[in-house]
Amino acid sequence: MIEKFERMAMLFAFYGKLLTPKQQEILSLYYDRDLSLGEIAAEYRVTRQAVHDIIKRGEKILEEYEEKMGLIKKFSLERDKLSRVLKLLDGMVNEPALAHKIRSVINEIVEIQQTD
Amino acid sequence: MIEKFERMAMLFAFYGKLLTPKQQEILSLYYDRDLSLGEIAAEYRVTRQAVHDIIKRGEKILEEYEEKMGLIKKFSLERDKLSRVLKLLDGMVNEPALAHKIRSVINEIVEIQQTD
Repeated sequence: MIEKFERMAMLFAFYGKLLTPKQQEILSLYYDRDLSLGEIAAEYRVTRQAVHDIIKRGEKILEEYEEKMGLIKKFSLERDKLSRVLKLLDGMVNEPALAHKIRSVINEIVEIQQTD
Repeated sequence: MIEKFERMAMLFAFYGKLLTPKQQEILSLYYDRDLSLGEIAAEYRVTRQAVHDIIKRGEKILEEYEEKMGLIKKFSLERDKLSRVLKLLDGMVNEPALAHKIRSVINEIVEIQQTD
């Protein structure tokens, strides 16, 4: 269950800007700010069911974008490889200064991927 | 003019799958297979103007996706940093085997970014 939540939060981080402003608002409260359906419903003065429907609909759209574009798949692959580079750099004991510089650049790449 | 064509071809590579099948077909002939408007018009038995309109409409949609998601901006930033790592590796003369391994992984990352 937590795994599904995390996957959806990731999908929202990648494709959220393609949703309508209203969908973005609701899904942001749910995924970024961790509000419950009941709390969101109270804030918007709608039923819990209405909030549930908006989230389900948004999730479906996000999944469709991932099916077409596969950014999360690519992102995970890249992330694995960047980790592998960082590990290889740990073994680079004879060139500590250069290893340090490369490590910085790799970490910058990881950061670019995280921001949106 | 060539610059604009290249940018649009890149936008199409990134976001093309979000277009309708018909738009994808036409823009693929134009951007990937380098057919002229006239050639595409002849193939589809429509006017050159109709093809022109479909391409302009598709381009507008692709630009809107980039405005929202900024993948090309991110991609360029990452690409610059990967090139910087490759350059730093050139100076890593005391650890040739490790440098070679890291170079391979970096090149794998560049490849992931290129495929779609």
